Amino acid sequence: MGKEQILLGHGSGGKLSHNLIAEKILPFFTNAELAKLDDAAVVNIDGRRVAFSTDSYVVDPIFFPGGDIGKIAVCGTVNDLAMMGAKPLFLSSGIIIEEGFELDHLQKILTSMRQMAEEAGVDIVTGDTKVVPRGAVDKIFINTSGIGLVAQNISVSGHNARIGDQIIINGPIADHGITVMANREGLEMDVELRTDSAPLNHLVQKILDCAPEVHVLRDPTRGGVATTLNEIAIQSRVGIKIYEAELPVSPGVQSACEILGLDPLYIANEGKCLIFCAREKTGDIINLLKKQKYGAGARIIGEVLAESPGKVYMETLIGGQRIIDMLAGEQLPRIC
Amino acid sequence: MGKEQILLGHGSGGKLSHNLIAEKILPFFTNAELAKLDDAAVVNIDGRRVAFSTDSYVVDPIFFPGGDIGKIAVCGTVNDLAMMGAKPLFLSSGIIIEEGFELDHLQKILTSMRQMAEEAGVDIVTGDTKVVPRGAVDKIFINTSGIGLVAQNISVSGHNARIGDQIIINGPIADHGITVMANREGLEMDVELRTDSAPLNHLVQKILDCAPEVHVLRDPTRGGVATTLNEIAIQSRVGIKIYEAELPVSPGVQSACEILGLDPLYIANEGKCLIFCAREKTGDIINLLKKQKYGAGARIIGEVLAESPGKVYMETLIGGQRIIDMLAGEQLPRIC
Repeated sequence: MGKEQILLGHGSGGKLSHNLIAEKILPFFTNAELAKLDDAAVVNIDGRRVAFSTDSYVVDPIFFPGGDIGKIAVCGTVNDLAMMGAKPLFLSSGIIIEEGFELDHLQKILTSMRQMAEEAGVDIVTGDTKVVPRGAVDKIFINTSGIGLVAQNISVSGHNARIGDQIIINGPIADHGITVMANREGLEMDVELRTDSAPLNHLVQKILDCAPEVHVLRDPTRGGVATTLNEIAIQSRVGIKIYEAELPVSPGVQSACEILGLDPLYIANEGKCLIFCAREKTGDIINLLKKQKYGAGARIIGEVLAESPGKVYMETLIGGQRIIDMLAGEQLPRIC
Repeated sequence: MGKEQILLGHGSGGKLSHNLIAEKILPFFTNAELAKLDDAAVVNIDGRRVAFSTDSYVVDPIFFPGGDIGKIAVCGTVNDLAMMGAKPLFLSSGIIIEEGFELDHLQKILTSMRQMAEEAGVDIVTGDTKVVPRGAVDKIFINTSGIGLVAQNISVSGHNARIGDQIIINGPIADHGITVMANREGLEMDVELRTDSAPLNHLVQKILDCAPEVHVLRDPTRGGVATTLNEIAIQSRVGIKIYEAELPVSPGVQSACEILGLDPLYIANEGKCLIFCAREKTGDIINLLKKQKYGAGARIIGEVLAESPGKVYMETLIGGQRIIDMLAGEQLPRIC
């Protein structure tokens, strides 16, 4: 029998990723912050609550409708900080480039990074650039890490979902992953697909100004809404029910999913946010979101239950219920 | 004529890297901190001085005598923070793994990361793991970013070298780069070569306790002592003279350099620190260093002059002078 190897599915963001991290990586680094497995750690620096997050971007292709690797590298880390209730302040940029990469392409990517940093209001203050020989990396990979400040009155975490909470999303799902997949596969569509990649920090700040007591904020990236909700159900030890009739999926994305044989619930988003809050606040939040650039499609898609802690159910269109599990395999490698 | 491409030499840490960053990357991100091009940015977070740094590690081979990619990934970022006079506190870990990578190897690397984090007294609080298909990355790349706290009375920067300063190094040069190169080339040596990779933060803290007014701390990694001194000469607009007779090179490293046709002044170190301080403090610092685990070989290797600002000269063994330029080409790809 061969030695145990890392599989492509270990990077899916789904169940195999979850197991790899929980069983093979976390045991090496025992500290309370990392163990929380939130989008960012919140650490104490001399009395200040500082959020700290990192993400590596390996998307293929590097340019796709509505964005590129530089755009998602900045927005992704900005969003990870925002999902902890932090105001993102500073980003790092660690770029690994394959020898022979076109300088024009690098500059196009850097332009996207600058534009997104400007929109988010963050500064890229430190960086590192490595060049490796041809074949040692596929074109370009980018790591961004970020730091932000969390106000003293904010306590947002995947562990904080409460029974009775309603679950809001700020718009249609699966746009990013389907756009990248369709582009990679050369799929011709009548409707235009575009990534939803966007910096959500200003939108999150408005939510927190309106409802500082929000319980959970989480961006459903790799593994999609289904996997993210499963993570929250496990972390908060609650049951989650979502309503199939309320899940927003654009017609183009729906068609592409059908052609590609993919379920939009498992497809990565780069500009979406799941918001868990008490029922009496959801009306205000929905009203607020609908006025925002990245919140026009906001709606309530589910609720938190006492039954079946750690599980996610969907109330189907025909009134039945089915379990929504984490992404199981390697559905979409290199999607972000 | 083809389009302009990224060359391997752009990642050398030498002159081409310097030009790529200064001319092609920095113009996209204009902010005072990044423009300083120090080992880490020092930013203000709600009244606290926070150092923030990032580095990607792409070393080949991933295991080598005395260390591995995990060891240098933690030590390198700890050292970048320490070189700004910061107390390193928290690290992130962004790992990109090639499909099929052996889990045993991953766990060996994670063990090194844990050991070094423990020695340095930092916590790895946030992480990201991506798996990419075979051929999309060579084995494993690791990005670490780090944050640390800078005391209010500390002002260390590559811009702060002053005329009359003496330059101290904490031990022999070129051990890391030569060990990796010799290992990669399968060079058989009578003497054992070992990386000098080590976390220098405790040593730096002792230096700062002894002499908080130290002007420059910098670890001569890619591009070696020669390139690092050139960067400091440019940043501080001073001339630098080093003494060939005082440059510490171990006999094994010297032999390997001769066989490989390499100059130890241009070879990467992973556990060395250049210290610039006023002459009246150097005796105390040398005495202190000699008692430390990573400072036994400390000595004065040069001084800062008013003449020839931006240039580095070497006083040779035979009493002549020659210019020591930045690393010009692509001497050692994937050395860290």
